[in-house]
Amino acid sequence: MTDATEKNLSRSVRRVFAADLGGTHLRAATVSEDGRIHFRHKQKTPRERAEDIVGALVEAARECEEQEAADGGRIEIVSVVVPATLKIETGVILKAPNLPCLDGFHLAAALTDALKRPTILENDANAAAVGEMWQGAGRGHRTIICVTLGTGVGGGIILDGRLWRGVNGSAAEVGHMGVDPFGGVPCTCGSEGCLEVYASATAIVRMAHEGLAAHPESALQSVEDLTSEKIYCAGVAGDALALEVFRRMGTYLGVGLASLINLLNPEMIVIGGGVANGWNLFAKHMMHEVNARAFPIPAAQVKIVAAECGDDAGLLGAAHLGFSANCRLSDKA
Amino acid sequence: MTDATEKNLSRSVRRVFAADLGGTHLRAATVSEDGRIHFRHKQKTPRERAEDIVGALVEAARECEEQEAADGGRIEIVSVVVPATLKIETGVILKAPNLPCLDGFHLAAALTDALKRPTILENDANAAAVGEMWQGAGRGHRTIICVTLGTGVGGGIILDGRLWRGVNGSAAEVGHMGVDPFGGVPCTCGSEGCLEVYASATAIVRMAHEGLAAHPESALQSVEDLTSEKIYCAGVAGDALALEVFRRMGTYLGVGLASLINLLNPEMIVIGGGVANGWNLFAKHMMHEVNARAFPIPAAQVKIVAAECGDDAGLLGAAHLGFSANCRLSDKA
Repeated sequence: MTDATEKNLSRSVRRVFAADLGGTHLRAATVSEDGRIHFRHKQKTPRERAEDIVGALVEAARECEEQEAADGGRIEIVSVVVPATLKIETGVILKAPNLPCLDGFHLAAALTDALKRPTILENDANAAAVGEMWQGAGRGHRTIICVTLGTGVGGGIILDGRLWRGVNGSAAEVGHMGVDPFGGVPCTCGSEGCLEVYASATAIVRMAHEGLAAHPESALQSVEDLTSEKIYCAGVAGDALALEVFRRMGTYLGVGLASLINLLNPEMIVIGGGVANGWNLFAKHMMHEVNARAFPIPAAQVKIVAAECGDDAGLLGAAHLGFSANCRLSDKA
Repeated sequence: MTDATEKNLSRSVRRVFAADLGGTHLRAATVSEDGRIHFRHKQKTPRERAEDIVGALVEAARECEEQEAADGGRIEIVSVVVPATLKIETGVILKAPNLPCLDGFHLAAALTDALKRPTILENDANAAAVGEMWQGAGRGHRTIICVTLGTGVGGGIILDGRLWRGVNGSAAEVGHMGVDPFGGVPCTCGSEGCLEVYASATAIVRMAHEGLAAHPESALQSVEDLTSEKIYCAGVAGDALALEVFRRMGTYLGVGLASLINLLNPEMIVIGGGVANGWNLFAKHMMHEVNARAFPIPAAQVKIVAAECGDDAGLLGAAHLGFSANCRLSDKA
């Protein structure tokens, strides 16, 4: 390395290459220490082979790297968010239900090899919680439970500033707390009455379908391909079935949150994911259950708020985890 | 202090004066760093005035101190376990449902004043969890949830060696997770279907009473003053009603544990309290629900075991917390 190159490097600004590997889309970006997103990349996630996923991530990182180089930025670490249970210490994916080609794959090693940068992995719901604490609704707070209401219901638990991953990296499965365990709706996990079967986008569509027979007047009767967004819009317009669906969803969510509050006594609960956009239809039902069921002191203390980072929560969380890991690596060096 | 006294002091062995202040009994002891209990004291808990409780604790401490002095032991710190929500940092009792005279009382300061020793307080269920980790079923483990099945159902959560108290000191209310929240039995906390109304000693007696009409053959028909112990004994002798009560209790407990496992992915769950003595009647029903409902990886990992410290769990936990606090105080000095 020439003196001039070294000087340029020391002047350049530290960035994390963060990627959020979804079952459908791969979203990536470079992020700086102040939480600003610089260059973005988005594409369909290749789903056939682990090698193709590595290839797509490497290509995205190189593209971002070139743009950063022109901008004076330098990628120091690679941080990838995956919809999977994983072994954080080794960077091995244990189980990725929506990207099964990654099961057992050593994704961190493959990326480190190709990109010559340290690479860390994190579960998507955990990363979203970190993102919300760093740049979103949880700014300034240290004990946060993040509940992500999407196709399923995920969660991230941060206690006194530390992500609680559990002893196998599989903690925070908020969607699989039983909220109606006896005779409730069967869940894909094998149990019944899990929060996920009442508070996910999938659940909202299912509950609307179930209610059509009892609501011949509903505008949803004539809607093709029901989605949680369409049901929400009908609710805003006063449709009784849509309102009933969000009432049920909020009620079950509140029951789950009350148990979380009694168990973990958090400072804040952040509700994210697409379904959180239905806040004005479900929040009062959720709060009713929380106030009726949780202990008064922790219930009065906890702030229950909507997420603020939207689709970027995972990317931002990945970036923050990347900067933290980089500090630890530098300390060791 | 003379040189001789100083020399004697430095030769004497460090002890904690630990007290477990129950709603009925005050149990106290001196404990050494190896977890051995030396001198014990037991009496009825004075319930009228906070000053009387302080007086009883001071008397117990002085009695133990005298015995220790003769034995070469020296009490360095006072550690008291209370059935209350409390502010750990200030040593103030916030709410003690079974000893209301302590509500708002600055117990730590009163004891420090009287005994001229640093005094710390801890919630009883939290201390029991620490006791089991230190000297009981949890030895060698760092991530433990302790569930205490007594008159009510309490809990203690230790994550990576640290007691998780929550932001108001009111976390780990395992007994007030909803396990049958819709149409379940009303709970004293104001909610319904809490774990406590199915898995406490009180619940076992209630369920037995409820079942008498349907079980005219039951031996429990002729038992006066039903207790969970008497119901257990009937179950061991094959009484169908008693067996049904423990089947229900184990089922609800298993539902609650499955949610705990999915949420916190602990290394171990320790079941303590008097009702845990019914282990051979409820364990298989509990495990059936855990295996049917919890995620396979954390369910295979978690060890679910009976507590080992019995009535001493709280005392031992208090002692361990006392030694840890004493180290911190010494570091500061």
